[in-house]
Amino acid sequence: MKNIIFNLGPESDVIISSRIRLARNLRDFPFPLKMNPKQSEEVLESIKEVLVNNYQDMNFINVNELSEVELFSMVEMHLISPEFAMSKKPKGLILSDTDIISIMVNEEDHIRIQALASGFQLENVWKMCLNIDNSLEEKLDIAFSDTFGYLTSCPTNVGTGMRVSTMLHLPALVMSGYINKILEVCNKLGIAVRGLYGENSKAHGNMFQISNQVTLGLDEYEIVNNVKNIVKHIIDQERILRNELYKQNPIIIEDKLSRSYGIFTNAKILTSEEAFKLISDVRLGLEMGIIKDIDMYKINEIMLFMQSANLQRLSGKKLSLQEINIKRAEIVQKIIKNK
Amino acid sequence: MKNIIFNLGPESDVIISSRIRLARNLRDFPFPLKMNPKQSEEVLESIKEVLVNNYQDMNFINVNELSEVELFSMVEMHLISPEFAMSKKPKGLILSDTDIISIMVNEEDHIRIQALASGFQLENVWKMCLNIDNSLEEKLDIAFSDTFGYLTSCPTNVGTGMRVSTMLHLPALVMSGYINKILEVCNKLGIAVRGLYGENSKAHGNMFQISNQVTLGLDEYEIVNNVKNIVKHIIDQERILRNELYKQNPIIIEDKLSRSYGIFTNAKILTSEEAFKLISDVRLGLEMGIIKDIDMYKINEIMLFMQSANLQRLSGKKLSLQEINIKRAEIVQKIIKNK
Repeated sequence: MKNIIFNLGPESDVIISSRIRLARNLRDFPFPLKMNPKQSEEVLESIKEVLVNNYQDMNFINVNELSEVELFSMVEMHLISPEFAMSKKPKGLILSDTDIISIMVNEEDHIRIQALASGFQLENVWKMCLNIDNSLEEKLDIAFSDTFGYLTSCPTNVGTGMRVSTMLHLPALVMSGYINKILEVCNKLGIAVRGLYGENSKAHGNMFQISNQVTLGLDEYEIVNNVKNIVKHIIDQERILRNELYKQNPIIIEDKLSRSYGIFTNAKILTSEEAFKLISDVRLGLEMGIIKDIDMYKINEIMLFMQSANLQRLSGKKLSLQEINIKRAEIVQKIIKNK
Repeated sequence: MKNIIFNLGPESDVIISSRIRLARNLRDFPFPLKMNPKQSEEVLESIKEVLVNNYQDMNFINVNELSEVELFSMVEMHLISPEFAMSKKPKGLILSDTDIISIMVNEEDHIRIQALASGFQLENVWKMCLNIDNSLEEKLDIAFSDTFGYLTSCPTNVGTGMRVSTMLHLPALVMSGYINKILEVCNKLGIAVRGLYGENSKAHGNMFQISNQVTLGLDEYEIVNNVKNIVKHIIDQERILRNELYKQNPIIIEDKLSRSYGIFTNAKILTSEEAFKLISDVRLGLEMGIIKDIDMYKINEIMLFMQSANLQRLSGKKLSLQEINIKRAEIVQKIIKNK
């Protein structure tokens, strides 16, 4: 499996992944909401031409032909948005061989460029996005205003069209309750904190998405730097608290995390919520050197495959909720034991 | 380790062990409560002489020289009673090489003969007790009344002086609530149901000691048969209920028992109560074929060594309650992983 989230990047004890997306639109077409099917097709063709011709490692995926389960598997892999999966309009996805870069065509904007890498790699993902963006701007007329910057369907994206986000694992901040202070500060600084699947999603397994709210009035460099500095600060806080919690009562922490590992690797029924909670403990145990029987690569693999749509894709059929919970426990044990 | 309880006997899916003890006294001495130290020594010497000289595989243990931790380790192995461990009078223990037969001298009675075997083996342990009893009666003048039978310190033992007991693991009867019906019926039939360590002890881990209450008015054969028949009935009930519980919802049972196995093998702190609860689930999982990573021999070994006095004996020092709970979790993992 090539999905990039399996690998470990810099600061992987706290940062799971870094992601940047750029929203772009073609000047000569209405925004997707207003397009007719013919215009949608034209937009799709022109972007496909530029990217698939320009890059040997970029592939066009005809998402209109995919089943619901396949589409939601891609949502779980963070390759497409849930809205994109559900949209009935002509749409397309261009994906790099490594799954690092994905470009949704005809989502909320004509073009959504995304680069996703493991660990703390904001500069790298930014470079990748810029590279794609430059290729598009060379060949296509992108909607841009000297006053407002890049124009987008939703005013919250106008300006840079940029969303910089990182996925953080913050168990010690949650355990100690300091997470509320962090949320407060982030809010004041124009930084959004969300759950694993973006807006309105809950923070399962102590995992938080931290991203910029403001896209206008700052340049790209400033946006990346703002997120980077706040995330660095959160990393420090999380690390200090982990050490303190452990120092205060090592055996209690060891007992708690080891029990979670025992349940995680033996249960026959696992709800998504419990699985994320247990994964949080297992990650922390691994990072602290308490759990040694498994590596982080497997945990990342489990985190991806244990999700509902991926479980159904692997089973080759729609499953009931109970069947999904049983299949989830099976996959966890399979990945841990058989590889 | 030679302790007999590690092995598996007949009907070991439900019956952990079978035990018979006979209470006997020498006619020419007062009962232990009334003896002076000189008399205690004389009783001790005469019994020791008969048994240690008669049997090559019987060894005299000078329990007066043992530490409290060593004595209570023997209580946990069911070789001696707690009262015997605590008594300050001259006392002695005669133990067979295999730990199957143990004879306490100067407990509540001058002689307490016990035979303990794994599984459902009441006839066998009875034969062993009788064999020792015959040797003693040949050489010594045993207190016996034609009206009352064998005379004992406590009137509840007068007659046969016989206590027949079996240790049963009854998780399905407990889960289904039917255990209360069993307790009621046993009570009416003069059968006592107790926890793991006899009178006043709680039923940890769904383990129950089932024994005769009446020693007078029935002969030995009838007492053994009464207990045997009731136990057979309980075995049947337990087996039927296990099957029914499993048939009703196999995955729920598998999940419950597998989780217990996961916690049992990974926890870093285990109280005695939790450990027995988890062992009950692990035993049931093993017997049902749900848990396959461990054998019953190891479970029996753990059940013995995880108890407080044995843990302290293995550590070579007195431990605090928290230290015992940590040591218990260590021993569980050591026995499971290293052997």
